[in-house]
Amino acid sequence: MSILTRNNVSLSGRENGPAMVFAHGFGCDQTMWRYLTPAFADRYRIVLFDYVGHGKSELAAYDSGRYDSLDGYARDVLEVLEELDISSAVFVGHSVSSMIGALAAIQQPERFESLVMVGPSPRYLNDESAGYVGGFEPDDLRGLLDSMESNYLGWSSSMAPMIMGNGDRPELGEELTNSFCRTDPAIALQFAQVTFLGDNRSDLPKVPVRSLVLQCTADVIAPEVVGEYVHEKLPESDYVLLSATGHCPHLSAPAETIAAMQRFC
Amino acid sequence: MSILTRNNVSLSGRENGPAMVFAHGFGCDQTMWRYLTPAFADRYRIVLFDYVGHGKSELAAYDSGRYDSLDGYARDVLEVLEELDISSAVFVGHSVSSMIGALAAIQQPERFESLVMVGPSPRYLNDESAGYVGGFEPDDLRGLLDSMESNYLGWSSSMAPMIMGNGDRPELGEELTNSFCRTDPAIALQFAQVTFLGDNRSDLPKVPVRSLVLQCTADVIAPEVVGEYVHEKLPESDYVLLSATGHCPHLSAPAETIAAMQRFC
Repeated sequence: MSILTRNNVSLSGRENGPAMVFAHGFGCDQTMWRYLTPAFADRYRIVLFDYVGHGKSELAAYDSGRYDSLDGYARDVLEVLEELDISSAVFVGHSVSSMIGALAAIQQPERFESLVMVGPSPRYLNDESAGYVGGFEPDDLRGLLDSMESNYLGWSSSMAPMIMGNGDRPELGEELTNSFCRTDPAIALQFAQVTFLGDNRSDLPKVPVRSLVLQCTADVIAPEVVGEYVHEKLPESDYVLLSATGHCPHLSAPAETIAAMQRFC
Repeated sequence: MSILTRNNVSLSGRENGPAMVFAHGFGCDQTMWRYLTPAFADRYRIVLFDYVGHGKSELAAYDSGRYDSLDGYARDVLEVLEELDISSAVFVGHSVSSMIGALAAIQQPERFESLVMVGPSPRYLNDESAGYVGGFEPDDLRGLLDSMESNYLGWSSSMAPMIMGNGDRPELGEELTNSFCRTDPAIALQFAQVTFLGDNRSDLPKVPVRSLVLQCTADVIAPEVVGEYVHEKLPESDYVLLSATGHCPHLSAPAETIAAMQRFC
């Protein structure tokens, strides 16, 4: 199976332009970038893909050993870039993909020009001894993972609208719910464990390229202190607090997200 | 069993002052008003209570027939007011208690001077045919109730921090999680069904007293359009959009909440 098939890679935009690679978050897929990509297609070669187990990737390629840490996902990103012979890409990662992008850039800096991190968090758990606020108490995360395991569809329907926020526009939460529900429960659970129980704080200072931290207002997954922490620990980063609320500004507030990205690029 | 014991009524503040009655929301109890009451204790007689099945109420008094609609809870409120011989009270209701207060005021207007509604919603389900946005799709609410039923503690730990918002201050979400978890699962499930599947839109125009609608920003339970709807349908109401985020401004932003209430009172 080719890597491009495995990750359902699709290419568009300016053929010989620099690459802009979009990496979706937990329970999502490449279609969720649809409001952003047109703004960059004139100048950039747009690279979209789905992580294995998500969207239209090859489910058979799922390997619970490989994907038992974010490194496995970072390997996927690097393999896609190698396959396409891409260097100096702008990598746009949503949520957990911000850290996946950071790990990939640390491994092969030449492949990245910069990282755009949409709602990043290097650690979701609070760490009192270090004075670190991630937003989640250990009991809450255990409950979240238990609840996910006992009733994945119910969990998805409960959580997705909360994560999306913007209940004024229910179609947004509905899209995220449907996307969560389409994801294989076992794969989703492992990805959630890897995501929510991980700790990438020590990786941030090693990121070898400049970054943009896009932080939303009232994001139930990544609170503002977390975005500020990421900004502070990255060697070279811009920080933008969006007026967009929720955890998915690329869907709920694309114009503001595009404007911040254009200023950075 | 006396009504004051049943609902764990506690009195404080100015003994001969007008009454200010505080009614908690789903999975909460009277202790959650502790940041607001001191600001009103000089002028008002402060009345706190717990709904049956919540806080330190008499669990044995729970009656699944009586509490199968919000009317049962409104009866509790009226019985407490009768027992204390209270008329012309300022009734402060959080979330579902806003509608409970509305129902009680419609039944016995003389007992109420005004209603303060903190994060009210007359209907959580969207109603496309009426062009009404409540924030929740039917599938999402079914999923939420299913998930609650299959793993109440996991559901509580997942949901409470999202409902509270303000992940920057994890102690807030933790308090709500603990309060949800202390509630009897069967009682909580019935209260959630009654709350989330109810429709009190037609009651709003009947509210016979003036009201204050306190709407939060980025509230995953009651979006802004819902607060605006409540304001529009009430015969006489003030509307304040708080800069406070989440669904519990009385805990997360007491100063702003108090200021809005003082202007109204």
